[in-house]
Amino acid sequence: MNPIPISDPADPRIAAYRDIRERDLVGRQGAFIAEGEVVLAMLARAPRHRAASLLIDERRIDALAPLLAGFPADVPLYAARQAVLDAVAGFPLHRGILAHGIAAPPLDPAALLAEAPADAVVVLLSAIANHDNMGGIFRNAAAFGAHAVLIDAACCDPLYRKAIRVSVGTALTLPFARLSRGEDAVAMLKDAGFRVLSLSPAGAHDLHRVTRGGRTALILGAEGPGLDRGLMERTETVRIAMAAGVDSLNVATTSGIVLHHLTAGR
Amino acid sequence: MNPIPISDPADPRIAAYRDIRERDLVGRQGAFIAEGEVVLAMLARAPRHRAASLLIDERRIDALAPLLAGFPADVPLYAARQAVLDAVAGFPLHRGILAHGIAAPPLDPAALLAEAPADAVVVLLSAIANHDNMGGIFRNAAAFGAHAVLIDAACCDPLYRKAIRVSVGTALTLPFARLSRGEDAVAMLKDAGFRVLSLSPAGAHDLHRVTRGGRTALILGAEGPGLDRGLMERTETVRIAMAAGVDSLNVATTSGIVLHHLTAGR
Repeated sequence: MNPIPISDPADPRIAAYRDIRERDLVGRQGAFIAEGEVVLAMLARAPRHRAASLLIDERRIDALAPLLAGFPADVPLYAARQAVLDAVAGFPLHRGILAHGIAAPPLDPAALLAEAPADAVVVLLSAIANHDNMGGIFRNAAAFGAHAVLIDAACCDPLYRKAIRVSVGTALTLPFARLSRGEDAVAMLKDAGFRVLSLSPAGAHDLHRVTRGGRTALILGAEGPGLDRGLMERTETVRIAMAAGVDSLNVATTSGIVLHHLTAGR
Repeated sequence: MNPIPISDPADPRIAAYRDIRERDLVGRQGAFIAEGEVVLAMLARAPRHRAASLLIDERRIDALAPLLAGFPADVPLYAARQAVLDAVAGFPLHRGILAHGIAAPPLDPAALLAEAPADAVVVLLSAIANHDNMGGIFRNAAAFGAHAVLIDAACCDPLYRKAIRVSVGTALTLPFARLSRGEDAVAMLKDAGFRVLSLSPAGAHDLHRVTRGGRTALILGAEGPGLDRGLMERTETVRIAMAAGVDSLNVATTSGIVLHHLTAGR
């Protein structure tokens, strides 16, 4: 992997990295930007997605040799000075470690559930639109060995740059699948033999009394609106007991608490 | 509380709100900025800190009457157009709901521990320098009824604007105290009859087996460097079991998982 020097921010070979923030907003349709040493290490070992190219601060390439050796030899490694990196990205890029990734074809939710082990935990997200929360949930799902994440049509993209970063790269390694608009996720989960828990401050069961074991799905919704009532009526509703005067936890924190409970002692 | 119209961004009566982001960086020495409806509601009921003034988008004042009535009548309520608010703050202020607060005198850590109930849970933070994490930990500590938060000399300020916002205002209501540099927090906790748990991926005990009850302190450190070895040797070290290949959780998420475990079933 010989570095290819880039001195012109307008060089077409690095067009994928141009104006990163603006392009974040319109989506990348099958492509993504990964940034930072830890995230690139996850991309190097991601089983499905792949790097199309790397763009690294020229002063850091020597120190990053072990990381860079983890990518196939035919992935172009572009090297640039900090000023060129900043000019390409459109803002000061303090880390200077970027990859342009190509997303694998989307996975089929039903197929992902069918191949789950007998004690699998799956997380289903409804209308999670905040990338920090999306990334945080992936990080927790990976930490506690979840089999997969399902996201509904109203969720943001887990392969958005910030979601990947907050997930510490686990958005690239943990399998996920997006449901179509109107698809009945609860029916799909039940058909696949999953017990379905939905988290809500109005839940009927205290989390610490919920038993573990078997294929289990955990449904989480956005903090403000919460989950749809019709959905809750068809599931085992669970609450996390809180002090008086506090009405909710952050949804990523909630995912960590519930996943820890469901997987503790394995 | 009659609104006082402000039309000049340079009006000295709103000097405290000027260039918010730049002033965040240098600290405010006994003052703070609170923003948003939920956070201002927490400030209105904060037992120790107080509002010096409010600065509200003039179009929102009528709808916010119930919130504004929660502040003492002698707190000036400044009303301005969106363009004036943006010019004062130095960036687009979408919410247009601000308070300039005066922090109460710092609390004494030992006194805070002495007055703790017999089943109190206290959180001690070491070198938490990230305001998102600081705010997230306060939110969780409040949600699970922690008695107080102690912070060491290397922690950032819980009354920094972003920490207050992420805490959903609980940084204004949950008592906290800062230790002096070199102060022996573990000795102070043990003297006050606290069992002291320290969280680390290298901890000796799995969290889900840790018993509940009695005065309990939970020590959390920054994700990268972790806790000081000398400190860990003098405490009961606890780990959260994770999947292979994942080395840590976000520290705010960790606080939520541990606090839920320690307070479940109360």
